[in-house]
Amino acid sequence: MQTISLNTHAHEELVDLTAEVQRIVADGHVTEGICHLWCHHTTAGLTINENADPDVKRDILMALRHIVDTSWPYQHAEGNSPAHIKSSLLGCQLAIPIQQGRLKLGTWQGVLFAEFDGPRPGRKVTVTVIPAGG
Amino acid sequence: MQTISLNTHAHEELVDLTAEVQRIVADGHVTEGICHLWCHHTTAGLTINENADPDVKRDILMALRHIVDTSWPYQHAEGNSPAHIKSSLLGCQLAIPIQQGRLKLGTWQGVLFAEFDGPRPGRKVTVTVIPAGG
Amino acid sequence: MQTISLNTHAHEELVDLTAEVQRIVADGHVTEGICHLWCHHTTAGLTINENADPDVKRDILMALRHIVDTSWPYQHAEGNSPAHIKSSLLGCQLAIPIQQGRLKLGTWQGVLFAEFDGPRPGRKVTVTVIPAGG
Repeated sequence: MQTISLNTHAHEELVDLTAEVQRIVADGHVTEGICHLWCHHTTAGLTINENADPDVKRDILMALRHIVDTSWPYQHAEGNSPAHIKSSLLGCQLAIPIQQGRLKLGTWQGVLFAEFDGPRPGRKVTVTVIPAGG
Repeated sequence: MQTISLNTHAHEELVDLTAEVQRIVADGHVTEGICHLWCHHTTAGLTINENADPDVKRDILMALRHIVDTSWPYQHAEGNSPAHIKSSLLGCQLAIPIQQGRLKLGTWQGVLFAEFDGPRPGRKVTVTVIPAGG
Repeated sequence: MQTISLNTHAHEELVDLTAEVQRIVADGHVTEGICHLWCHHTTAGLTINENADPDVKRDILMALRHIVDTSWPYQHAEGNSPAHIKSSLLGCQLAIPIQQGRLKLGTWQGVLFAEFDGPRPGRKVTVTVIPAGG
């Protein structure tokens, strides 16, 4: 079990964690299994999506701003309820298959940390590697 | 593997399961790994979000009512399609890291059962504890 | 670890994978644990929902078309940003509990591959079976 710490630099941002997760998996001793990721925050999340064209990341954040309207009658006094809702829509956890000691990702897939209430220092993701059955 | 049974008391409700899941993990023999949760229903789900201010839970349910409009041309005869869609948006499963025999949650994170078609007796969540690799 | 390959036949489609996943689990040697599924694409996803009435699947796809509006100012040149966003909303991975060597699904639950940018040949889902702790 290892922890990735990151600082975010915008109010909303998708940060690519693929290389860092890949390195943690490569350093471990599990050749086949799953790599579980956990985001420790309720105004951020984790998602898998295209890493190649940065417009995809911009479009995801833009669409989520349309889906979760800031004008609805929110009651939470901190004023960041849209970030909480985006966190639940994307989820704060996921697991990725490991084969031959590496993440088995699709061609275009990257591991993205989704910041919805930044910028913030010290965002944390816990990485746990789990072996498969025989 | 254990099962949590719960009764829901409103049409829509976020029920805090954190203490019950924590107890199941503490009773087990896995000190490091993941705790997997599965909701057995297609009109309910599971999510992680803030447990401290109850307004966050109210805001999540309110926002989901805006996101999934009841006026769209649904065809499913039971009339509960919005609940099915909310279940798929939040998801019916998640896994949480275990460290030193306890759930490793962020400061504000709670484990929430999301009822979207209640009130209902006998909602079920299966809890499976999985050990990490060496 | 095994791979399911499938061809999709419509632009948007929910394809039932339950029987195929069930067979992979039954062929394995894990009697208690979780079965992890991974979709290798960023314009498709995986979800659990009702398999009985096909109207539920139609309603899910219809609602997602309302939730993710095609008229928003997308920048991604391929023109399939709504499919990328639906992939992140539903997620591309999930894990299902295994008990007595079989998927432990709720009465109405089916495992659905969600195509959002089809029709496409050779869509892939990796299945990894993970044993539970003692």
